[in-house]
Amino acid sequence: MAEKKALIYEGKAKKVFATDNADLVIQDFKDDATAFNGLKKGQIADKGVVNNTISCALFTLLESKGIRTHFVKKLSDREMLIKHLTILPVELVVRNIAAGSLVKRYGIKEGLVLEQPVIECYFKNDALGDPLMNDDHVVMFGLATREQLAEIKTQATKINEILKAYFLERNLKLVDFKLEFGVHKGEVLLGDEISPDTCRFWDSVTNEKMDKDRFRLDLGLVEETYHEVLSRITGKA
Amino acid sequence: MAEKKALIYEGKAKKVFATDNADLVIQDFKDDATAFNGLKKGQIADKGVVNNTISCALFTLLESKGIRTHFVKKLSDREMLIKHLTILPVELVVRNIAAGSLVKRYGIKEGLVLEQPVIECYFKNDALGDPLMNDDHVVMFGLATREQLAEIKTQATKINEILKAYFLERNLKLVDFKLEFGVHKGEVLLGDEISPDTCRFWDSVTNEKMDKDRFRLDLGLVEETYHEVLSRITGKA
Repeated sequence: MAEKKALIYEGKAKKVFATDNADLVIQDFKDDATAFNGLKKGQIADKGVVNNTISCALFTLLESKGIRTHFVKKLSDREMLIKHLTILPVELVVRNIAAGSLVKRYGIKEGLVLEQPVIECYFKNDALGDPLMNDDHVVMFGLATREQLAEIKTQATKINEILKAYFLERNLKLVDFKLEFGVHKGEVLLGDEISPDTCRFWDSVTNEKMDKDRFRLDLGLVEETYHEVLSRITGKA
Repeated sequence: MAEKKALIYEGKAKKVFATDNADLVIQDFKDDATAFNGLKKGQIADKGVVNNTISCALFTLLESKGIRTHFVKKLSDREMLIKHLTILPVELVVRNIAAGSLVKRYGIKEGLVLEQPVIECYFKNDALGDPLMNDDHVVMFGLATREQLAEIKTQATKINEILKAYFLERNLKLVDFKLEFGVHKGEVLLGDEISPDTCRFWDSVTNEKMDKDRFRLDLGLVEETYHEVLSRITGKA
């Protein structure tokens, strides 16, 4: 079952392969790291293994709490079997604490705890630099229907509640994270990955950055931090 | 009544003066023109007279259709008596046809007719370049309450319907326009101005630009175009 066939897509951090079942594909996690819309490039040793393992654990957690995802099962260190989605070309960012582009765009202080989580939509388009959109734009450009948008925002809010509590038990503050959703047989499912590439985590005691910002901002200890997050999730060193 | 007292605010296109009545102030329209967040500066002869006259006509029209505005009466060529508002620091842009920043940000074609009007919120902040915001941002930053935001979007939609029909009778397509709202004695009212400085108008036959884009883009015939829009509104040459 699920024999690896042709490469059907290669992104910045993952390859996707067809299988002998048209409903299923394989995500293969690479060590390649990019930031600032591809302007900064590098490698993070073992990132593919770490992110696949973390993502499998988090999709399993979310499924157990009633969130429908594309996850089927972990195949190997770097490979995850998933349902084949038609990805909606809109990225959702959920924010609990001010960081990154929110700080730059609106001139607020990094670390400001938001009274309510903020959900943002970005047009998934490298050539345009993934611009921010409001709900009217998403619907007008046909990136999602008004109903799909309401549904994925509701899902994102639930996912945030689940993950925030989960990470706090592991001494990590969930600062913000990016989600992608897609359609499979008419149903909207959570797709992509959930990892230190797509989330900001801060140590809940020291506020140290425990995510891809270590690579983006040249903070050092990049590989060590990815492994530390993995170890807090799996309980294994 | 309404004696002109101290200058209490000077913006890029208008001065605001106190009166002997704390509830009322006077908007005095200047000929100064700016674009691209103040990077381009100039003068458009008689712009203050034209924009005051057009704005008085449009506020009168909107009031007659049930829209609550800050407009009290025209005092002179350049002066309008208005209710003193505490302006909400969020600008609403209503779009019917793609132009300007929508075209640049999302890589779409100028002139694309939008299936539904799109409403955008911008943070009124020169230092940050008036960044786009979604509803969550507006509420989170306290620029407006969730209820005020819903109310001003409803008003903006009604205003668009009224103005679109009004301008089409005058052979002008209402491409997009900016609105500002403020609070007066607990009530949210439409403020600022409505003019070729704050709207995009295209001739409904030739699609010629009939607004501040003539100044922004150095298209020539700037003064003549402002007077032509005035004449189509007042019916006077």
